Amino acid sequence: MIVIDRSGVPFRSVFSATFMTASSVSPRVTFEALRDFIRAAFVVQGLPESDAGQIATLMAEADLQGSDGHGVIRLPQYSRRIQAGGINVRPNIRVVREKAAMAVIDGDNGMGHLVVSRAVDLAIEKARECGVGWVSTRYSNHAGPASLYARKPLEHHMLGLYFAVGNANHLPPWGGMEMLLSTNPIAAAFPAGDEPPVVLDMATTVAAYGKVKARAKRGEPLPVGWMIDREGQPLTDATRAGEGFLLPIGEHKGYGLALMVGLLAGTLGGAAMGRDVIDFNADHVSVTNTGQAILVLDLAAFGDPAAFGESLDTLIRDIRGSARLPGVERIWLPGEQSHLKREAARKTGIALAAPLVTELDQLADSLRVPRLVRLGEAGPG
Amino acid sequence: MIVIDRSGVPFRSVFSATFMTASSVSPRVTFEALRDFIRAAFVVQGLPESDAGQIATLMAEADLQGSDGHGVIRLPQYSRRIQAGGINVRPNIRVVREKAAMAVIDGDNGMGHLVVSRAVDLAIEKARECGVGWVSTRYSNHAGPASLYARKPLEHHMLGLYFAVGNANHLPPWGGMEMLLSTNPIAAAFPAGDEPPVVLDMATTVAAYGKVKARAKRGEPLPVGWMIDREGQPLTDATRAGEGFLLPIGEHKGYGLALMVGLLAGTLGGAAMGRDVIDFNADHVSVTNTGQAILVLDLAAFGDPAAFGESLDTLIRDIRGSARLPGVERIWLPGEQSHLKREAARKTGIALAAPLVTELDQLADSLRVPRLVRLGEAGPG
Repeated sequence: MIVIDRSGVPFRSVFSATFMTASSVSPRVTFEALRDFIRAAFVVQGLPESDAGQIATLMAEADLQGSDGHGVIRLPQYSRRIQAGGINVRPNIRVVREKAAMAVIDGDNGMGHLVVSRAVDLAIEKARECGVGWVSTRYSNHAGPASLYARKPLEHHMLGLYFAVGNANHLPPWGGMEMLLSTNPIAAAFPAGDEPPVVLDMATTVAAYGKVKARAKRGEPLPVGWMIDREGQPLTDATRAGEGFLLPIGEHKGYGLALMVGLLAGTLGGAAMGRDVIDFNADHVSVTNTGQAILVLDLAAFGDPAAFGESLDTLIRDIRGSARLPGVERIWLPGEQSHLKREAARKTGIALAAPLVTELDQLADSLRVPRLVRLGEAGPG
Repeated sequence: MIVIDRSGVPFRSVFSATFMTASSVSPRVTFEALRDFIRAAFVVQGLPESDAGQIATLMAEADLQGSDGHGVIRLPQYSRRIQAGGINVRPNIRVVREKAAMAVIDGDNGMGHLVVSRAVDLAIEKARECGVGWVSTRYSNHAGPASLYARKPLEHHMLGLYFAVGNANHLPPWGGMEMLLSTNPIAAAFPAGDEPPVVLDMATTVAAYGKVKARAKRGEPLPVGWMIDREGQPLTDATRAGEGFLLPIGEHKGYGLALMVGLLAGTLGGAAMGRDVIDFNADHVSVTNTGQAILVLDLAAFGDPAAFGESLDTLIRDIRGSARLPGVERIWLPGEQSHLKREAARKTGIALAAPLVTELDQLADSLRVPRLVRLGEAGPG
């Protein structure tokens, strides 16, 4: 059970195996080149320059921190949806319900990155005033990695909690086989003092569906515990993923968490949940009515933010320096690996998979925008 | 892995096995008799009548809903702590930080039930005004089942989220073997329309430590996946529990959740977390500085509460009526079993284990209060 990791070695750190994702032969790009490429692709598809820039920055930040399932890899899919009319490129994003410490934002079917960014900014304002701010979205769309939004309040000495309804149902209720729930993620970010922030970003399923798709692409089997088939038996053949379901973390507990996150991020704000969720991998046209929710707490309302940072630094060092199980090289804090990846990618560039870069070149050609500039190449100017 | 339940039968509902907990030979008591007994025990130990009544009601409600690890079973332990001077029986519970939508309450080392009840009432007030209310506690104590507090906002058409720092560290960080974290629970309650509310109440570990102790008492082994030993190997001998550690749900994810809950419920409000947490099973004197946090969201701020109830009813029925895996008799919603237990216990009484009743009789005698009245016996009057 839980004790044995994928390789069968008892309790090796799951982190170290996933840390080195990009091989040295992968094409590398700078954050700026990636951002500019994405922005150009959105501008040519009708988005206002500033909106395109905001989305491009967030998508490039996803790749920078190693959330590569949520970065530029999504550009072809987003583009298909925009071209099919499934995204409003000139949305009227507006507050439709409001009290002192909360609001509901209607995203008017715009890009999720824009809708959620607006929600986070408003929640920060409300937290500054009231100590706490909660903003829900409706008629939003897929917005990339949850951690980007939970992290945004950090620079204001605030902490963020983020909940989202996933954009396709892959999870049945516990004991069931109808996929009424999604991988509904939860993210939380806490500012430390001298240490990097603690940033949790997790799907409520054992594996995110993107990881299943990646295994299928590489011809690798799925570890026992990721998925089951319609008989309730382990499903390990990744190519048969369509016949099975993801498993929630902690059995019925993860089912409960996925339901809780969906109610908070979806139902509460009037967004889709359960049978109403559109599979945006398969359907490029229907309005998804995606819901997200952000909670911001202002540390200054609770006490001295510097004292919080010191307490968290102590805790982080206690955890990092604590006794390790045999074979474990390092104890990680949530968000620490993303932090290191971000630092490294700023220096040496962002590594992208070669097939992805080929796909992006094709997209660039079809959109008639300049191709993504690799590190070491001359820029387009 | 996760697929096989305790009995080895593939994917039988974990719920049905735990539903029938009380045998028909167990002594039964009414809710009122239990409440009155607990109240008398606290009054004779120096608590004001109204405080004693409030705690007694919450503890009896715990037993009523089947949270029997958090009900009257705790009375001997609470009494030991009170008599050792580890609880302030006349606390000055007060607000020490406040903004429009938040507050921090200092519990002055009073009984946790009193401190958290005050926090929830204040959060409800703030949510009515601002749409959202968050109240943190410090210098609180063990307060019983998380769900009791998450449920309190329901009657106001509000939803509750509750976080608590557990009262003993049983969980190391992922890959570690120093128990720096507790089973830090999370609870959430959502009001439905005609259906019972959805109420989640879960430790962030695979098993709560109380369940381990119960297995040891009954001489039963632990299922693989509950605990590991200092070599990282499964620990299944419940009598050796002291040599091992609980496992978090979803491996590193549950570690992240336990840390998140601890930061929200402990560090944020200035309560104990990490190395500062007192093991209140072993230490009856030291001030625990327990922290909890409650978040209340007012449905009326987000839209029509009746519409939320209808949406949730639909979702509940979709889930309950959805296709089941082979061998699964019923798909449960979180909180549904507690709801049924509560209904049943109101009619037929609360079943208590015979050894517990004996222990309570001894406590009653030592405190010189009337013994707990069993169903069918005449009352003390």
